[in-house]
Amino acid sequence: MSTDIPDIVIGRLPIYLRALNQLARQGQEITSSRELGQLLGISSAQIRKDLSHFGGFGKQGTGYHVEILRKKLEQILNVDTEWSIVVVGAGHIGHALAHYGGFVNRGFRVVAVFDNDLDKIGKKIDGFKIQPMEDIDDFIDKHHIKLAMVAVPAEYAQDVANKLIEHGVRGILNYAPITINVPDGIYVQYIDPVAELQHMTFYLSS
Amino acid sequence: MSTDIPDIVIGRLPIYLRALNQLARQGQEITSSRELGQLLGISSAQIRKDLSHFGGFGKQGTGYHVEILRKKLEQILNVDTEWSIVVVGAGHIGHALAHYGGFVNRGFRVVAVFDNDLDKIGKKIDGFKIQPMEDIDDFIDKHHIKLAMVAVPAEYAQDVANKLIEHGVRGILNYAPITINVPDGIYVQYIDPVAELQHMTFYLSS
Repeated sequence: MSTDIPDIVIGRLPIYLRALNQLARQGQEITSSRELGQLLGISSAQIRKDLSHFGGFGKQGTGYHVEILRKKLEQILNVDTEWSIVVVGAGHIGHALAHYGGFVNRGFRVVAVFDNDLDKIGKKIDGFKIQPMEDIDDFIDKHHIKLAMVAVPAEYAQDVANKLIEHGVRGILNYAPITINVPDGIYVQYIDPVAELQHMTFYLSS
Repeated sequence: MSTDIPDIVIGRLPIYLRALNQLARQGQEITSSRELGQLLGISSAQIRKDLSHFGGFGKQGTGYHVEILRKKLEQILNVDTEWSIVVVGAGHIGHALAHYGGFVNRGFRVVAVFDNDLDKIGKKIDGFKIQPMEDIDDFIDKHHIKLAMVAVPAEYAQDVANKLIEHGVRGILNYAPITINVPDGIYVQYIDPVAELQHMTFYLSS
C-alpha cells in the first residue's frame, strides 16, 4: 500500500488494534477515542486524527463499534489473512518465538525455525524441527515467505538479512542489537529491550 | 529528568546510541549525521535536530566524535551507571531475558527472576534461582529495584504491574500483549512482536 500517511501514524495502528482486541475479549461493544486514549496514554484528539486518515469510523458522541473498528484495522494492516513467518536462530529468543502464543489470531503463524548450529539442527522446538540454514533459500522460495524474525548473534544479522531479502523476504523483525541495512521497499523493525529500557531511564533519576 | 523535549525524540536516542556502539566496535572514531542517517534510515536533518536539544555535539563539517557522543548519550539516558532489573515470569520469554547477553555494557543487569509456578520455583535459569512471587515485595524494597521486565500471561500483567509499582518500581517493560494502566510518573514500554510485524504488513500486499 502506497501512502502519504506518516509512518508514525501507521506504527500506532497496531497499538489501537491491540487495545480493541482487549476490549473485545472483555465483551465490550462500543468504545470512544476518550476511553482508548486513557487506556493507551494517547490523547483522544490524536486517536481521532490518526483514524481519520482512513475514513470516518465513529460519529461524534456515538463512539466506535469495537468489532467494526477492529475488523477495519485488521484490513488496513493486512492481517485479515494470516502471514507465514520463519524464525532464524534457534537460541533462547528463537525458542521463545517458536513457543509464543501471542501470534494466534493476530495475523501471523510461525512455519519454520532455522539455525546453522549442528547441535541444534534436527532437534524439535514446540513441534518445529530445527532446519539447517542451507535449506532456508528453498523454503522461502517454495512457500513464498515474505516475513522473517531474525534472532541470531549481532555479527551474523546483516548476512542473514541479505540472504532472506535475496529470496523475497520483504519484512524483517530483527532481534539482534544491531542496525541492519536494507534496500528500498524492504522493511525492518527492531525488538531491542535495551532501547526500550533506556527510553524509560531517561525519565528516571537513579 | 523533567523536560520539554518530545518523547518521540527521547525514543530515538537509544537508537543513536546503539548505532554509535556499533561504530565504536568497528573502531570508527568520527561519524556524521549523514552516516548515522544512512545507517538508521533517518534523515540527517532529523538527527542534527534531535541532538541539538542537548547542546552542540558536532561542528558543521567536522562530524561527531563517536566516543564523546556515545558517552554523552549514555549520560543523557542515565545509563552511565548500571540499573538492576528483575524479570517476572519464568516462561520462554523470561528464560530468554535471563540469558540475554545484550544487556551487558548497555546499562542493565538482570538480578532476579520470579514466578508463581511451584514447578518452576527453585529451578535455575542461567545462574538465577527462580524465586517465588511472594518474595518479590521484599526483594524490590531491599534492593531498591526501579525497573522490571514483565513476561507473564496477559491476564496477570496488570496485577503484577500494580504490585511492582506499589513497591517502588517506576519503569516496566511489558512483554504481555496487553495494555497496562499505570499512574503518572510510572513508565511502561511494550515489547510486542505482533505490533511490529503489523507495522510492516501495512506496507506489504499479501
